[in-house]
Amino acid sequence: MNNKLVKNALGRLVPTEVNGKKAVPFKGVGKYKPDYRKYAPPVATMADFPSGDKRVKDLKTALLKAGIKDGMTISTHHHFRDGDLVAVQIFRIAAELGIKDLVWFPSASFPCQAEMIDFMENGTIHHIEGSLNGPLGRYCSEGKMKGMGVLRSHGGRFQAVQDGEVVIDIAVIAAPTADPFGNANGVEGPSACGLLGFALADSQYAHKVIVVTDNLVDFPCIPWQIQGNYVDYVVEMDKIGEPEKIVSGTTKITKSPDRLLIAEMTAQLCLEAGLIRDGFSFQAGAGGTSLAITYYFEQMMREKSIKARFARGGSNQYLVKMLEEGLVDYILDGQTFDLEGVRSMRDNPRHRDTSPFTSYNYHGKGNFAQFVDIVILGATEVDLDFNANVNTHSDGYLLHGIGGWQNCLFSKTVILPIPLFRDRIPVIRDAVTTITGPGELIDVIVTERGIAINPKRKDLLKALKNTKLPLKTIQELKDEAEKICGIPEKPKLGEEIVAVIKWVDGTIIDAVRRVIV
Amino acid sequence: MNNKLVKNALGRLVPTEVNGKKAVPFKGVGKYKPDYRKYAPPVATMADFPSGDKRVKDLKTALLKAGIKDGMTISTHHHFRDGDLVAVQIFRIAAELGIKDLVWFPSASFPCQAEMIDFMENGTIHHIEGSLNGPLGRYCSEGKMKGMGVLRSHGGRFQAVQDGEVVIDIAVIAAPTADPFGNANGVEGPSACGLLGFALADSQYAHKVIVVTDNLVDFPCIPWQIQGNYVDYVVEMDKIGEPEKIVSGTTKITKSPDRLLIAEMTAQLCLEAGLIRDGFSFQAGAGGTSLAITYYFEQMMREKSIKARFARGGSNQYLVKMLEEGLVDYILDGQTFDLEGVRSMRDNPRHRDTSPFTSYNYHGKGNFAQFVDIVILGATEVDLDFNANVNTHSDGYLLHGIGGWQNCLFSKTVILPIPLFRDRIPVIRDAVTTITGPGELIDVIVTERGIAINPKRKDLLKALKNTKLPLKTIQELKDEAEKICGIPEKPKLGEEIVAVIKWVDGTIIDAVRRVIV
Repeated sequence: MNNKLVKNALGRLVPTEVNGKKAVPFKGVGKYKPDYRKYAPPVATMADFPSGDKRVKDLKTALLKAGIKDGMTISTHHHFRDGDLVAVQIFRIAAELGIKDLVWFPSASFPCQAEMIDFMENGTIHHIEGSLNGPLGRYCSEGKMKGMGVLRSHGGRFQAVQDGEVVIDIAVIAAPTADPFGNANGVEGPSACGLLGFALADSQYAHKVIVVTDNLVDFPCIPWQIQGNYVDYVVEMDKIGEPEKIVSGTTKITKSPDRLLIAEMTAQLCLEAGLIRDGFSFQAGAGGTSLAITYYFEQMMREKSIKARFARGGSNQYLVKMLEEGLVDYILDGQTFDLEGVRSMRDNPRHRDTSPFTSYNYHGKGNFAQFVDIVILGATEVDLDFNANVNTHSDGYLLHGIGGWQNCLFSKTVILPIPLFRDRIPVIRDAVTTITGPGELIDVIVTERGIAINPKRKDLLKALKNTKLPLKTIQELKDEAEKICGIPEKPKLGEEIVAVIKWVDGTIIDAVRRVIV
Repeated sequence: MNNKLVKNALGRLVPTEVNGKKAVPFKGVGKYKPDYRKYAPPVATMADFPSGDKRVKDLKTALLKAGIKDGMTISTHHHFRDGDLVAVQIFRIAAELGIKDLVWFPSASFPCQAEMIDFMENGTIHHIEGSLNGPLGRYCSEGKMKGMGVLRSHGGRFQAVQDGEVVIDIAVIAAPTADPFGNANGVEGPSACGLLGFALADSQYAHKVIVVTDNLVDFPCIPWQIQGNYVDYVVEMDKIGEPEKIVSGTTKITKSPDRLLIAEMTAQLCLEAGLIRDGFSFQAGAGGTSLAITYYFEQMMREKSIKARFARGGSNQYLVKMLEEGLVDYILDGQTFDLEGVRSMRDNPRHRDTSPFTSYNYHGKGNFAQFVDIVILGATEVDLDFNANVNTHSDGYLLHGIGGWQNCLFSKTVILPIPLFRDRIPVIRDAVTTITGPGELIDVIVTERGIAINPKRKDLLKALKNTKLPLKTIQELKDEAEKICGIPEKPKLGEEIVAVIKWVDGTIIDAVRRVIV
């Protein structure tokens, strides 16, 4: 990791090489233009699949047939979230086979996969390219991972696969339903988790693709969210995941008075700014505050007979109810966050599954995020230029992935409803510990003690000229927090870079440094 | 066209160069193994699509923005069949702009596109790579086209695009419904033609993609059979096609006693051979004989309480009825052949659209054709080795495309129900004028005067040991035809090669020679 550092367009020092590959520093939003071709996977032939029946006896056999060996990159998806039962099995088998230095390339990681630490300790896994949540993040933060962590947004992950930044040797796709040809979906079967969109790029670009299912049906498996013509092997096992654990965060609307206030002000701001109007669209997420915002939107829409054209999921019971009542025409969903979402996606043609190719990939000819009027996101920290952090805490620990957060910044109005401080640590800072997204794309910060609108959004400021909402400058919000909590301490960080944060175009927006324990 | 000729694995003399590109002779079924990568189109960036609204004022503007210039390859799809109104407009604009030597790469051509002859005459179009039906075939057959015709199956066309044999500069996709982002489908709107599967590879691999629609809807256009993230420009026009003309051949069951006899014997053979059994699958096509076979299948299934797992479309009213009555679980459809097919695909989740990637591409990890138990196909000629011709007539004229015919040969039992002679010209010959498909993949020839089973299919011969059906050798059938019609004359052909027939793997299975007029 003796690596030349350069200052990127946000003034952050970032490495020019990551895990032995050349890296491009962030150049500014929309400034980096790709001048190369997509990744070209090998051409297959039906002659190698004479019967079309791709079943093999178990996952170990499939991995061996796929040619698993030292140094390979193995991908998994996270539609089961904390209920995934397949990813760790891959590395248990690899460890048993004595294979070393694998790269695990999940679409996201969860605490249920903490066992991966053992595989990093014993050399089976060299490093993880993907979100590093909870225990895995802590492990990386303390400098224990051999390689550098590489964090990407959902769209950035597809960009990296499409562009050949990451070549997947073997993709393992846990599929709630599949047929012997490898057609697969997430909406049917006892382990139905909704969709398999996060595995789509993997299926199309990986050199070998293994579908693992606990619900094998006769050809054709319909719908085929994953197409069998990209699949090499099909494995049956008893249970691939616990779908009841797909529930993200909370399923209940917050009861905290502060958060309810933030939610109400957020909704009120959207209404007063004219953003809630017939045919509008929104993406609110699934935390307690987000659910409260969805609830307030719903009340306003009902009261004013306003219909939304679409809502972006992560879907949940509240969105499903709005769809079924006709308050929204469509849910465009990347991930079901509860079993009501799964049911709705299975049965309602107006609840459509999407993949990051359609929704989020910056290296496509646009994406769906551009069409979303209001997006509600979180942040651990925000600086005076509205740059925001979702990856690290103020103590420097890398504890969260990016998810679709960066990709959603391209929506029309980006609002961060956040508390002014957490555990007496102010959220608005002179400088954030890590920049996950540039402030020029962040429009509004709503806190329980006031709302700051990015001065770039003159239109919003004008529309809210006569509001009774407590508009303040972001500096005022910061001062207020510091008056209450004091000036926050800086985290104790070493020089060593343990992870990088990729921007949506594959450039490096920031580097994460080792936490000194 | 001074071109070295070599003998391929079927003993046919084929060129080693086609339109300036190296060509590989057919090596035998499953013998040619690709050792290269897929075609890699340029990486796009959302930075070039800042609003996501891709509308431009007209087709000319779109073509100019797409950079249309001499020598480019322009693709269209044929889901409107003989009702297409878009393809000729492209070349009218190109002619008006003085652009020369374009390659037209349709997924199929139809008589409504005869105006393309004018564009070949005036140099706008250099040659056509695609099916050459009717007037276009006659033009090519008489040696008038500047370049060599290249005929591919539907699967072969996708293979060629995926493998980079054909690089599409501009794809123009006529879409019955689309949104400003370019999401598009064929099931909604006044010009609904069913699906857009034949344009899928074009959308994904072409350098520039233009969607043309007469039914623009607000984002999101759902379903999105074509994904807007692959689309550069969206054009609105008054009318893109006449969907009532998608009707293929006849919509009525044949009344010819000979053809009814052929159909009945075909169905009876399938029943006696045990091919019609619970969970079976079939693809019958849409001609008068095919519809009669479907009708007989239906009677047998009803009588014996047999359900098919799926039927492959070209869908039509008869298949839709079987689906709705529960006689088949699913229709997997590549092309709707009537408006009942369109309605069913729009409304019935058990009627699924497919693309040649899933259904037919030989350079995938298998395809759906492998799962079809019985496929019913036609032929203009068959030889004593069961090699068959669907492209040329016995007078040498190239009058038909391949369609999915070659791809369907990979189904489990391939049956050709054909008359023993047409216009007193015998169909079974010592040698066919053109080999479109190798005899080793063709199992049964059913004629009004007897049935020949390929001796390779010992299992079928055994299953039919005690049948009352008139089993004969193919030599006996040929002799019988010649007894009635005499020995047919050879066509009058020059040496010059006017077109080549590609096999499903991109190799050349035969060459078509100029007809001496």
